[in-house]
Amino acid sequence: MANSIGIVKAQRAVFDTPLTFRSGAVLPCYELVYETYGTLNEDKSNAILICHALSGHHHVAGCYEDEPNNIGWWDNMVGPGKPINTDKFFVLGLNNLGGCHGSTGPSSINPETGEPFGASFPVITVEDWVESQARLADLLGIRRFAAVVGGSLGGMQALQWSLAFPERVAHVLAIASAPRLTAQNIAFNDVARNAILTDPDFHGGNYYQHGVVPTRGLRLARMLGHITYLSDDVMADKFGRNLRTEQYNYGYEVEFQIESYLRYQGDKFAAYFDANTYLLMTKALDYFDPAHLSGGNLNQAFSRAKAGFLVISFTTDWRFSPQRSREIIRPLLHNKRPVSYAEITSNHGHDSFLMEHPHYFDVVRAYLANVYHEVTA
Amino acid sequence: MANSIGIVKAQRAVFDTPLTFRSGAVLPCYELVYETYGTLNEDKSNAILICHALSGHHHVAGCYEDEPNNIGWWDNMVGPGKPINTDKFFVLGLNNLGGCHGSTGPSSINPETGEPFGASFPVITVEDWVESQARLADLLGIRRFAAVVGGSLGGMQALQWSLAFPERVAHVLAIASAPRLTAQNIAFNDVARNAILTDPDFHGGNYYQHGVVPTRGLRLARMLGHITYLSDDVMADKFGRNLRTEQYNYGYEVEFQIESYLRYQGDKFAAYFDANTYLLMTKALDYFDPAHLSGGNLNQAFSRAKAGFLVISFTTDWRFSPQRSREIIRPLLHNKRPVSYAEITSNHGHDSFLMEHPHYFDVVRAYLANVYHEVTA
Repeated sequence: MANSIGIVKAQRAVFDTPLTFRSGAVLPCYELVYETYGTLNEDKSNAILICHALSGHHHVAGCYEDEPNNIGWWDNMVGPGKPINTDKFFVLGLNNLGGCHGSTGPSSINPETGEPFGASFPVITVEDWVESQARLADLLGIRRFAAVVGGSLGGMQALQWSLAFPERVAHVLAIASAPRLTAQNIAFNDVARNAILTDPDFHGGNYYQHGVVPTRGLRLARMLGHITYLSDDVMADKFGRNLRTEQYNYGYEVEFQIESYLRYQGDKFAAYFDANTYLLMTKALDYFDPAHLSGGNLNQAFSRAKAGFLVISFTTDWRFSPQRSREIIRPLLHNKRPVSYAEITSNHGHDSFLMEHPHYFDVVRAYLANVYHEVTA
Repeated sequence: MANSIGIVKAQRAVFDTPLTFRSGAVLPCYELVYETYGTLNEDKSNAILICHALSGHHHVAGCYEDEPNNIGWWDNMVGPGKPINTDKFFVLGLNNLGGCHGSTGPSSINPETGEPFGASFPVITVEDWVESQARLADLLGIRRFAAVVGGSLGGMQALQWSLAFPERVAHVLAIASAPRLTAQNIAFNDVARNAILTDPDFHGGNYYQHGVVPTRGLRLARMLGHITYLSDDVMADKFGRNLRTEQYNYGYEVEFQIESYLRYQGDKFAAYFDANTYLLMTKALDYFDPAHLSGGNLNQAFSRAKAGFLVISFTTDWRFSPQRSREIIRPLLHNKRPVSYAEITSNHGHDSFLMEHPHYFDVVRAYLANVYHEVTA
């Protein structure tokens, strides 16, 4: 791990002020796990918040003392001298509420019942997450983030920061994201959810008490998701029509290598991820729409924003295509916000945002160098 | 039904010459249901074969005397004065072997056991279908088709006719098709198959004997398929982010209209289609590759073709995009075959091939008018 931040430690924050969700549900108390890298400067102006996407978590960079191979999911982006430079910035990553990596979520024990929350964990929105993230910032004494950064669903959280707390975020980096899902995006989520919801082992979300896990459903959801993360091109390059054995076997076992890859990804994911969390994450994606309460008008919705924006898209991303990034830019320009935009040529589809790419990394590096000058001026 | 062919009747052909599949499996005897429209001329030169796609069947046009609302799936295309003009051509549609609309398939009773074939029905290929279609042509006395026409998986059968029986087909119309699936296409099929295969009600394909049907899996497969049949654009136009009720309800019931539509399509399909047939159809798609035995070289594979070709694609079809149609054209041009190509501007995605569209219909009409002059000259 060249230039990695090295050994890091997860921390835990306990909140006992009730949080009221958009749905009206109330969580009386909850915990968030988080990690920080770099040093918060004296005037606390150099903090960057990293918001995670569907299957992400608080372990953004570095590794653990007892797990040297457990490397953070964005270790290529975050570290000393890296685009999100921990020599300059104090970087905060957390596991979102509803998650399954340590923060309070459906698989946590509900203190009121002594049983896992399961189906009783409320449907959570991007707005609720940002609210809970702001409380974590309060706890750490961070009044205003130099930047809030996220890819995909994480980008939606970054955008929401600029709308919910316009004074508390100087810059927003929204990568491979969209202002709201299209019908096609929702459709894919709905198929994934239906795979889980109709799995006989789902038990209405209370599978923990039955000693089972809706593995079949979660596996299908992930396989499907995985197709939408990759571009047609990269699949063709990587797998094409390559066979697992040398000839057609005319059966339902794995025949093509792409099948083997997908099933492996599905199995791996279903072995560690919580199905209820998966459901929550896809619902948060579906519901996010800053213009929901303003009759669909994004120009009006973004009139509250005061941040500067860097928007990045990738040419072969068909889950959140460059067109979707331009839908973020238009209302920002309408509201005369400063916006930089980079459309990166990459054949890795939606997954590009997680991959090292010189042009992409240079853009983030250059933008954040300016942010650093600005916030520490 | 203006200009419909009117009342039609399904017929049944029984074959007792064993058919050896590509897999090596042998079907000792089988039946095919079919329909014909129009009149076979004296020299039997005016016959057109319609090959169906994944969920199609022999009922291409017209309706049944006792079911006036059961209209053929391509009634807009096939009939008197229509682009595939039954005043001029003798049109033949059949339910493919392995189907669930009357031809011998997994849900048929295996005469050797007295039980449904179920999992014992062999995996079937496009090549096997074309072989069985040629036997049906023999039975009807058709030595050579004026044209073989098909969309999607049907287009693959039409292409295969030109390779397996170059002397027996004058023209091929391959619509919204591809010479072989990409890794992404296979990936979608594999997720659909896994939904069925892992449904506890699948019972290894022998669900008939258990008195159940893998409805959950088949429903998911169809929901997923349906997404790939529609364009992002048409979904956005038709459904957008429209809600079923007036506000967000923060739960897992149908929230957006696109979800309601997809679930309805899934339920409807799962109520009548056989899951084993669905599996077979997706496998036939995966396996089709005329260049499989020539090291991937399509130029070489298509050197056998002697037909003329009309290839049609639709701009917003992302399942079999215009690029995929160009992959059909290149080897045909390489082999100096006459090829006409039309890329139709339509926002209906892959489903465009089933829809009435003036430009599309004009192209088919004009091409077949020339075919008629040629074969009856």
